[in-house]
Amino acid sequence: MPITTDPKLRSFVDYDEKSHFPIQNLPFGIFTEKGQTRPGVRIGDMVLDLAVLEKRGFFPSRPKLFNTSTLNPFLAMGRSTWRAVRATVSRLLREDVGELRDNSELRGKALIPVQNITLQMPVAIGDYTDFYSSREHAVNVGTMFRGKENALMPNWRHLPVAYHGRSSSVVLSGTPIRRPRGQVILENQENPVFTASRLLDFELEVGFFIGPGSELGHPVPVDAAAEHIFGMVLVNDWSARDIQKWEYQPLGPFTAKNFATSISPWVVPLDALEPFLCKAPEQVPRPLPYLQAKNARTYDINLEVYLQNSRISSSNFKYLYWNIAQQLAHHTITGCNVNPGDLMASGTISAPGEGGCGSMLELSWNGSKPIRLHNGEERKFLRDGDTVTLTGWCQGAGFRVGFGEVTGTILPALD
Amino acid sequence: MPITTDPKLRSFVDYDEKSHFPIQNLPFGIFTEKGQTRPGVRIGDMVLDLAVLEKRGFFPSRPKLFNTSTLNPFLAMGRSTWRAVRATVSRLLREDVGELRDNSELRGKALIPVQNITLQMPVAIGDYTDFYSSREHAVNVGTMFRGKENALMPNWRHLPVAYHGRSSSVVLSGTPIRRPRGQVILENQENPVFTASRLLDFELEVGFFIGPGSELGHPVPVDAAAEHIFGMVLVNDWSARDIQKWEYQPLGPFTAKNFATSISPWVVPLDALEPFLCKAPEQVPRPLPYLQAKNARTYDINLEVYLQNSRISSSNFKYLYWNIAQQLAHHTITGCNVNPGDLMASGTISAPGEGGCGSMLELSWNGSKPIRLHNGEERKFLRDGDTVTLTGWCQGAGFRVGFGEVTGTILPALD
Repeated sequence: MPITTDPKLRSFVDYDEKSHFPIQNLPFGIFTEKGQTRPGVRIGDMVLDLAVLEKRGFFPSRPKLFNTSTLNPFLAMGRSTWRAVRATVSRLLREDVGELRDNSELRGKALIPVQNITLQMPVAIGDYTDFYSSREHAVNVGTMFRGKENALMPNWRHLPVAYHGRSSSVVLSGTPIRRPRGQVILENQENPVFTASRLLDFELEVGFFIGPGSELGHPVPVDAAAEHIFGMVLVNDWSARDIQKWEYQPLGPFTAKNFATSISPWVVPLDALEPFLCKAPEQVPRPLPYLQAKNARTYDINLEVYLQNSRISSSNFKYLYWNIAQQLAHHTITGCNVNPGDLMASGTISAPGEGGCGSMLELSWNGSKPIRLHNGEERKFLRDGDTVTLTGWCQGAGFRVGFGEVTGTILPALD
Repeated sequence: MPITTDPKLRSFVDYDEKSHFPIQNLPFGIFTEKGQTRPGVRIGDMVLDLAVLEKRGFFPSRPKLFNTSTLNPFLAMGRSTWRAVRATVSRLLREDVGELRDNSELRGKALIPVQNITLQMPVAIGDYTDFYSSREHAVNVGTMFRGKENALMPNWRHLPVAYHGRSSSVVLSGTPIRRPRGQVILENQENPVFTASRLLDFELEVGFFIGPGSELGHPVPVDAAAEHIFGMVLVNDWSARDIQKWEYQPLGPFTAKNFATSISPWVVPLDALEPFLCKAPEQVPRPLPYLQAKNARTYDINLEVYLQNSRISSSNFKYLYWNIAQQLAHHTITGCNVNPGDLMASGTISAPGEGGCGSMLELSWNGSKPIRLHNGEERKFLRDGDTVTLTGWCQGAGFRVGFGEVTGTILPALD
């Protein structure tokens, strides 16, 4: 195990054992302070300014990566650079290393309280792809719309189904979400009407960012996938179910999902998630060889959904049938190239059994079983003013490696 | 009519009446000469260097737009800048204006023969969207797969169906196209096999580039669409039909189309196409108000497909049921934002009747009726070594406003 993930590591920066951002995590983000935007690493409730460290020569053998307002140049460098930077940052933040701890001038410049910063989109996203990799979710939705016998399409167990999403409307956590208007079919009617969506929904997802890109015409082998993946964020793929139902055949969802997708601001490196690797679900039938990893693993990440203050769902990333290596291998199998900063999301992650559904569509069983909130209110789908918050973390021995949260509040539709 | 499209205009640069690039056209592209990449305008077989003109002060009231390797900054400026630059370029190239004509030093620097340049991608594409707006194409495909009675899905006449495409693999004309490998179902088999695609196809399309972007949450009204569209290119949306058939349900095409999409290098401004505006097809039923333009028009653009030297299809852009203003209005109706350089393509443009199909799938009626080439060979789908060339032009009185061509040759699949 690399020293950076050692459970015994302590930082001179204070945080408690429920913090998502202990020294074992060290996620990367982009922040603005005093009008300047640059990359930083989160620790507890502080941000370590990477531009300052770079200027002071702490990353000597690297080209200029942090005098910039996106993580893309850093992502493009690949694993050896990611690990070298992570090792330096980890060392500087240790309670038993004096270099930063005892340099009050540098500490004052490089360590900034989170209440003094504004977070920005961490990455300039080129292409955004959304998978459909949770069997529980696919079975739930399929059962609702096609019955239990035909719940899973014949292709579902053979390949990670996905669609290309819209990258322009991927927004940062906290961005208000305007209820979309569009075409829907009302009950017992044949022709569509133009209306504000009545079946607005969230989707609980986790996405990963591509590091070094690949060349057009050359697939990324499943066992090389991790070399191309920098880290992960929480993703809420907002969806208008009534618009989706009318528009999606035969080419898939379009305006029902292109109005907004929210992501959490801190990108958690795969290197920080390594201690939480676990066995990937068994796959029957065995997929074709290009989807078989030598050692198929996934991550044990607790996931929760809150509507206002009510927890309405608990799931886990480990339930995903198709893992991220398989997703990337399949995405590129026909020769599609990927670029630094491309985002690939999991699709809604629903857990087996009750209480683990990753969307209102499933939680309310297509609106037939309203869910009850703490304050006694009921919901079938989202109302104006509702705030949806997704959170996720890996549980270590006495610490959490977390994703923080991705949140969004529904604004009423335009007149 | 603005002077720039006057049929009587002549340039001191020579070209014949079949040239796609007379002074009435003046399309924009990006080229490299002597190691430097910059924007240019095509006229006859010459390229006018916009970086040189800008440096010499010919665009005085504009910010620096042409000291760059993409057209994006120019696209972002909007119509008044597009028209001012076009007017200046048009004036400089006129046979009755001496400013460039008689300045041999400037002419030598600013006018470069096309054989001395290498063309580049004209635009850094953010998002790529592909519509499905040809009724003839949708009916042909629907009839093949669902029978004549159910050829058009119920939504098709109510909204311009589309899917989000993959922008990373949009490539310039001339880029070889590697035959993709992927999952397909062979006849009478239940489980997929991994194989090189046997049903490789082209799609005859035309796409437009977004100029000034729009704000998230705010739809672009159908009557304002032209303010957001700079110009058009030819698009070949290469497709692996066997992979598509197996993967596309329920979320639409994914790896069957993400391996390559080719575009022509010269972006023809809408301003150059204005004389070729024509009435848009009648739409029954009348679409919802957000899709009704005050004056619904489209463009009369002849389109042809060549396989090697055999012309295998003749179609026209004017047959498209949904016009570009409707496409953009629908794309943004839920609040999806667009950015300068986004590409939106028409979908396959098939003409009514025989001989106007825009794909091999339709031309060979799903492989059941091979087509015959000049040399006596037959084709159901594309073979390794085949070269597909799309071309298109508007016919003026004694001149053509053309798109040049988009071409690609099929390479054998990787081992």
